[in-house]
Amino acid sequence: MTTIAEILEALVARPGTSRTLEAGETLFRAGDRVTALYVIVAGRLRLVRPGSAGAEVTLHRAAAGEAFAEPSLFAERYHCDAVAETATRVRAYPKGAILAALGTRPEHALRFTRHLAGQVQAARSRAEILSLHTAADRVLAYLRLHLPSGSDVLDIDQSWKQLASELGLTHEALYRTLARLEREGRIQRSGRRVSLMR
Amino acid sequence: MTTIAEILEALVARPGTSRTLEAGETLFRAGDRVTALYVIVAGRLRLVRPGSAGAEVTLHRAAAGEAFAEPSLFAERYHCDAVAETATRVRAYPKGAILAALGTRPEHALRFTRHLAGQVQAARSRAEILSLHTAADRVLAYLRLHLPSGSDVLDIDQSWKQLASELGLTHEALYRTLARLEREGRIQRSGRRVSLMR
Repeated sequence: MTTIAEILEALVARPGTSRTLEAGETLFRAGDRVTALYVIVAGRLRLVRPGSAGAEVTLHRAAAGEAFAEPSLFAERYHCDAVAETATRVRAYPKGAILAALGTRPEHALRFTRHLAGQVQAARSRAEILSLHTAADRVLAYLRLHLPSGSDVLDIDQSWKQLASELGLTHEALYRTLARLEREGRIQRSGRRVSLMR
Repeated sequence: MTTIAEILEALVARPGTSRTLEAGETLFRAGDRVTALYVIVAGRLRLVRPGSAGAEVTLHRAAAGEAFAEPSLFAERYHCDAVAETATRVRAYPKGAILAALGTRPEHALRFTRHLAGQVQAARSRAEILSLHTAADRVLAYLRLHLPSGSDVLDIDQSWKQLASELGLTHEALYRTLARLEREGRIQRSGRRVSLMR
């Protein structure tokens, strides 16, 4: 599996530039000129559409290993703020170099396109899971979707807190739901390993 | 605004092939070889990860004007079923021709990449809205996100039923929420035009 950092590095044929942010620090603001595409090395960022007090809307949360605000590549200026949720380190890849390489290095461009197609699918299936009304339905749908082909056993590759956030649940609600599903004999758990019972 | 059908047509330099499906008919099944990328001309399709009875997971719902299963372009075989929810017409663009053109026609490839980046953003912000717990929060976030820049007035460009589905609400819950927000003086409605009060 090639990471988006590797894809961008190969595309622009140079390593990204590192930048660190403290918790609460802003990487860019709506209206700023877009000069780079960023990948998170460590930490977490939130993209926010600013509004008057209490009227902010979160557009996306991104974690280590992820790029974010990919459409800004094709925009003059940002339409949202990017705010570090914790101490965060990002790598910046220059927008001009990416756009030039997308036009001249088709093999690398194709890998970037493939990455975006995968992100589309991941975000759409997350949205479908979130549109389910009960916590149990969300957890079961997540397990079914992420089980390796032909297996009933999934090793959760993120913290329970991250999974809760992905499923739109508090982590207490996730724990309660996992415990209930286990009592009902629908799953079995051992650490981060979850087996789906048929 | 260029549609995905126009982008694909320009990319492969020929019109897509039309196919019609009845409600409930399957366009492709998990395991089928991928030969084309489809755009919906009319109707609706659902992508489903098949499972034993009751264990199906919906991955995505796509409507007229939309492409779907874009990552399958890079796969040998499908990982999900595509089922028409109503009488549906699609256009098929051959996978081989798309991949060849992505490698040789950089200007057209860039428009496809830009389209995917926009889809990533749309799906991620939909997921964030769906992760909000109350119907009122979802409706207000949707309005704030879709208001034209500098305006407080939004013309909803889909049916209330489609909007309800996008927000993960029954349409009764959407109506009740809109009525309550209007009574509370937080929005005003006139047909499909909604004004957000500050």
